Amino acid sequence: MNSSAAQLSLGSFLRPQAVALLGASDKSAFSRSAFTAAKALGFTERLYMVNRSATPAHGKPAVKRCIDLGTAVDTAVVMLPAEAVPDALSDAAEAGIRNAVLLASGYGETGAAGAALQAELLAHARRLGMRIMGPNCLGFINYLDGIAACAMRSDIPPRPGPMAIVSQSGAIGSGISRFAHQQGIGISHLVCTGNEIDLDVSSIADGLLDDERVRSIVMFIETVRNPDRFIAMAQRARRLERPVVVLKIGSSELTAKVAQAHTGALVGDDRVFDEVCRKHGVIRVNSIEDAAITGSLVAYTGPVKRGALGVVSISGGACEIIADAAEREGVPLAEFAPETMAELREVMSAFATLHNPLDITGAVVRDPALFERTLAIVARDPGIGLVGCVQALPANETHQVGANRELLLHVARGLNAAPVPGVMVNQAMTPVTDVGAQAIIDSGLSHVTGGLDAFVGAVGRVFRWSRSLGETTETARLPAPADAHPTSEHETLNYLASRGVQVMPAELVTSAAAAAAAAKRIGGAVVVKIASADIAHKSDICGVLLNLHGEEAAATGYATVISNARARRPDARIDGAIVAPMRSGGLELIVGFARDPVWGAVLAMGMGGVWVEILKDTQLRLLPLTQTDVIAALEQLRASKLLKGYRGTPAADLQAVAEAIVRIGEAALALGPDLAALEVNPLYVNGSHVEALDALAVWN
Amino acid sequence: MNSSAAQLSLGSFLRPQAVALLGASDKSAFSRSAFTAAKALGFTERLYMVNRSATPAHGKPAVKRCIDLGTAVDTAVVMLPAEAVPDALSDAAEAGIRNAVLLASGYGETGAAGAALQAELLAHARRLGMRIMGPNCLGFINYLDGIAACAMRSDIPPRPGPMAIVSQSGAIGSGISRFAHQQGIGISHLVCTGNEIDLDVSSIADGLLDDERVRSIVMFIETVRNPDRFIAMAQRARRLERPVVVLKIGSSELTAKVAQAHTGALVGDDRVFDEVCRKHGVIRVNSIEDAAITGSLVAYTGPVKRGALGVVSISGGACEIIADAAEREGVPLAEFAPETMAELREVMSAFATLHNPLDITGAVVRDPALFERTLAIVARDPGIGLVGCVQALPANETHQVGANRELLLHVARGLNAAPVPGVMVNQAMTPVTDVGAQAIIDSGLSHVTGGLDAFVGAVGRVFRWSRSLGETTETARLPAPADAHPTSEHETLNYLASRGVQVMPAELVTSAAAAAAAAKRIGGAVVVKIASADIAHKSDICGVLLNLHGEEAAATGYATVISNARARRPDARIDGAIVAPMRSGGLELIVGFARDPVWGAVLAMGMGGVWVEILKDTQLRLLPLTQTDVIAALEQLRASKLLKGYRGTPAADLQAVAEAIVRIGEAALALGPDLAALEVNPLYVNGSHVEALDALAVWN
Repeated sequence: MNSSAAQLSLGSFLRPQAVALLGASDKSAFSRSAFTAAKALGFTERLYMVNRSATPAHGKPAVKRCIDLGTAVDTAVVMLPAEAVPDALSDAAEAGIRNAVLLASGYGETGAAGAALQAELLAHARRLGMRIMGPNCLGFINYLDGIAACAMRSDIPPRPGPMAIVSQSGAIGSGISRFAHQQGIGISHLVCTGNEIDLDVSSIADGLLDDERVRSIVMFIETVRNPDRFIAMAQRARRLERPVVVLKIGSSELTAKVAQAHTGALVGDDRVFDEVCRKHGVIRVNSIEDAAITGSLVAYTGPVKRGALGVVSISGGACEIIADAAEREGVPLAEFAPETMAELREVMSAFATLHNPLDITGAVVRDPALFERTLAIVARDPGIGLVGCVQALPANETHQVGANRELLLHVARGLNAAPVPGVMVNQAMTPVTDVGAQAIIDSGLSHVTGGLDAFVGAVGRVFRWSRSLGETTETARLPAPADAHPTSEHETLNYLASRGVQVMPAELVTSAAAAAAAAKRIGGAVVVKIASADIAHKSDICGVLLNLHGEEAAATGYATVISNARARRPDARIDGAIVAPMRSGGLELIVGFARDPVWGAVLAMGMGGVWVEILKDTQLRLLPLTQTDVIAALEQLRASKLLKGYRGTPAADLQAVAEAIVRIGEAALALGPDLAALEVNPLYVNGSHVEALDALAVWN
Repeated sequence: MNSSAAQLSLGSFLRPQAVALLGASDKSAFSRSAFTAAKALGFTERLYMVNRSATPAHGKPAVKRCIDLGTAVDTAVVMLPAEAVPDALSDAAEAGIRNAVLLASGYGETGAAGAALQAELLAHARRLGMRIMGPNCLGFINYLDGIAACAMRSDIPPRPGPMAIVSQSGAIGSGISRFAHQQGIGISHLVCTGNEIDLDVSSIADGLLDDERVRSIVMFIETVRNPDRFIAMAQRARRLERPVVVLKIGSSELTAKVAQAHTGALVGDDRVFDEVCRKHGVIRVNSIEDAAITGSLVAYTGPVKRGALGVVSISGGACEIIADAAEREGVPLAEFAPETMAELREVMSAFATLHNPLDITGAVVRDPALFERTLAIVARDPGIGLVGCVQALPANETHQVGANRELLLHVARGLNAAPVPGVMVNQAMTPVTDVGAQAIIDSGLSHVTGGLDAFVGAVGRVFRWSRSLGETTETARLPAPADAHPTSEHETLNYLASRGVQVMPAELVTSAAAAAAAAKRIGGAVVVKIASADIAHKSDICGVLLNLHGEEAAATGYATVISNARARRPDARIDGAIVAPMRSGGLELIVGFARDPVWGAVLAMGMGGVWVEILKDTQLRLLPLTQTDVIAALEQLRASKLLKGYRGTPAADLQAVAEAIVRIGEAALALGPDLAALEVNPLYVNGSHVEALDALAVWN
């Protein structure tokens, strides 16, 4: 599909002038929901009823066929069962309708037969020149323009705002929307895309980026059906500095099973998706609440200039909870600068302890302007990029007493005067009631959120996202293809050497005498290992002997590994044995290339031994990579301290390590799509001495 | 203080028949709040006004002195400033009032002068025979009996229920209470204890355990002022199988600073408090939301019999989010038993995929009874201890359409028929509105909570707490005191040996010749180490030589370590050197005794090297310990896999390791309170061979 055509069509898709409900009926729950949503948005004038018997629905007349409507309609919401959908599309196309929202289920989500039906449906729509949302979807609400083409109810009163919600699941999309509504978060669009035979979450999000009024996009994703489109959308969002917040399931093994059952979606390796998000500046969250709270906060703040939080509160307890949460979430609470301290000393009592989070104590009840003064000072601190003020929003009239009203006024003034984004934070994740909403308007507050933990978590995401925008995106080299097909250790090491990776000077020998001669040439202690493309795990068959001293030991070693291999793997073709110098005293890394079925080539790296085997301490990166990327990845390892020198092992030359890892990645990419995996284990590191000691390639 | 006297007094404290407001005034915000709360609870008849001028307040007459009230009053709420408090107490005592709630601030939280004032106040109250809540507190509301003695507003309508809230901070106590109210969680008491010169959170919680109507106690704690009282309360709660949920700040370093500023509280090592909670079955949470949601859930479920969750939902997306959250939170989702599968197959469509969480799909909209049938089947599964049904509670009349109403009825029937606790779960942490509350009553739902992540987290806590009740609490031995004062390595090892710990057969020698002779007696490779009580870190001064072979090497080694020590630490008294057998090939553990200023003797244990130095992988336990305790602790180490045998190292004999660690703990305890620390590093483990290779004691 041509992407500019897709966008062109998408604009009209989310902003139709008129919508026809196909299968409109007072008896249908879908139809009632559709009408109710349209009514809440004042859209019923432009909503037309179509059904087989031309029976009036929802108090409006109906026609039998779209062509009978006698007016231009952009979008058909098809509420008929699967078997009636093809004819309905033909009818709509005949009337010039180019967009259809298909609610019917019974397609890909039910198994192979449904998937075939779905493919036929898509072909039919293509022939008619129609764009499709669904099937098995709930459609969309465009709050900004007051349009509903859906089987969802709009919460009342609608709260239009800058945050879009795009979800594959109707239930979760509605769930995020309802939570947002109750938290007072304004929504621009709610789009539920279902089985996505045509439009998917990525194309919808891409279309939403065209709308300047949309300041953040929150997505719920079960599976990314078109990875290229997702990445292109994410890259565009990043260029535009418009945040994309993704709640994607699949972190558990069980989820993979559940998701297969649910929409026939295949859930890829969740860690790879984490890396996709990291690389492309997508904010990932784990819960519905965090999705809405983060999406709303970042829509308000946009990118922030400095990555530390400042907090002012009347409650010492709240200050402490925030300090704990900030440590858990890795959110820096800036130490106040000397000038901030000096200014605070002027306005605060002599007893007060001045640090961030700042507890201004109950003194503010007697002197509400203290909120304004302290917030203004804290927000000017040169280290602070976002300022929060913990204060309760009234939920009902009994809370909204005069004193609270005045406090809120001062909070709002202090926050609004800040040169950085200022947020009022409810102590808990409590709803914004009508009284609360009015209090926000009356006091002039710009942004209100809660609770403390959710706020701190969202701030951390805003900081990391803002920082990621500033990261230079050096382009990594894509290597020239190689005409090679290495498999065994020896072939793979030789191939790596040909691609600029320093490898151990190993010799392939085919006799005990040759092993002795090789040991003599190498000098010092040697290693003797079985050489066979058929034996991947040499240690398992006692095919590796370490630390052999002298020619005789090498010769005996040769005989031993050959006989062990023959005894334990009589089927294996044996090429001989490898004699190589014994390395010791350094660190051993593992570097592994693999191919994710959805996202393509990735490289995993980590320290060997317990670090990878017990602690699973590896970093995963999409290929290709630059040295800067690799160094940043290595620094994320828990074992990174070892690379900086530990207990007599010298600090690793990170540039040299990164260069080797970049080259391993390039070498693997150059072997083309049939290479399934390539592992260097270990990559020996001793200061600047970086050398692949063993390697193996696996082909499809 | 006598604890039975404390309880006796406490009963009347939280359940007064009549309350006097001292300093009652229409102009005072405190006074208005007090009256508003009493009014919401219908308590104004029993609320009496006292002020200096006998000016009527809140529409009620006032008297100048308590004695003039002419009626029996149990409790005085003193809303006067600090300087007026002593006279007010005298006045109240004269009128026979025995309990006082003191709101005034300006005491211990402001510094040393305030702390002195506070001490005087306590002495005054003791002389008068009065019990005190506060000062610097907001008092309490007893929802179950409709009593308010506080400066907090009760949310309206009050929702009495089984969960008590006890908080040192008034702001956080109110915050938990307001969040609970908005989530539809019923509250038994809200008690804010402030500076706690007399009654503290532990004594209040202990008193609440006397009230059978209170099914869970949620506490916010900045500092535990009386550890023994806290532990006694926790132990009693555990015996009664009544859950205590604690939100305690102090997990961050910053918090320690903030808390000192806030209430003069000293925040102990947070990991020790984690251990206190683990040991005594206290549920610990990190946020206001989790405190309320967990407290409410566990009040409803009580202890559950099986530790796995079953879930039924109309939304596949919700199933997936729950599966992911369950993996993160370590909550088992039971695989359905064969009989469950067979029963589900009978009621579910042929397309349906049957696993837990169970997605019953939109099919339930056409057949609402499917909820009831599937919930009943899932709840009967022999592996499941708690069943959740994800379904939205209506928030307003537009949600509450006929179809939803019928769905809720079937959800409630299915959950109520379950032989295990059944919970309806909102997709997000959305409030329970009046419409929602009515829907709960109409449908007969027993418990409603949300969102998905908070629910799963709370379920995990209920499971762990329930399991902890079943753990046998074998009593650990308290050792007989030892008359010893070991300091140096040699003395400490000898002392440990005398307490039954196997130690390395080391010899203290004072000449090169003696070192050679010792090496001969020992045989094989030896270690030579400097022996000096003044040198704690022997390696740092090159005072340790490993792997010396033969008598000559031992003799040279002796000379080397002595000369190194003399050169680098000329001040140190040198006792000679230790010659000991070289151990290799096994594992090295670290066992460290320390004394927490609040909670007393603790023992840390972990694997040496990177495990403790980089990964901080240690377990902390309060002393004394049994072998069972130690084995359970070792199994919590991330390094525990190493103990089970790894890469040629044999599996450790856990009984032998645990016995050694128990004896080290006993040996340390036996040295009495002047011992500050005692570390065995390493404790060598090779199969059943467990031996202290080095040790050091540090005294106050």
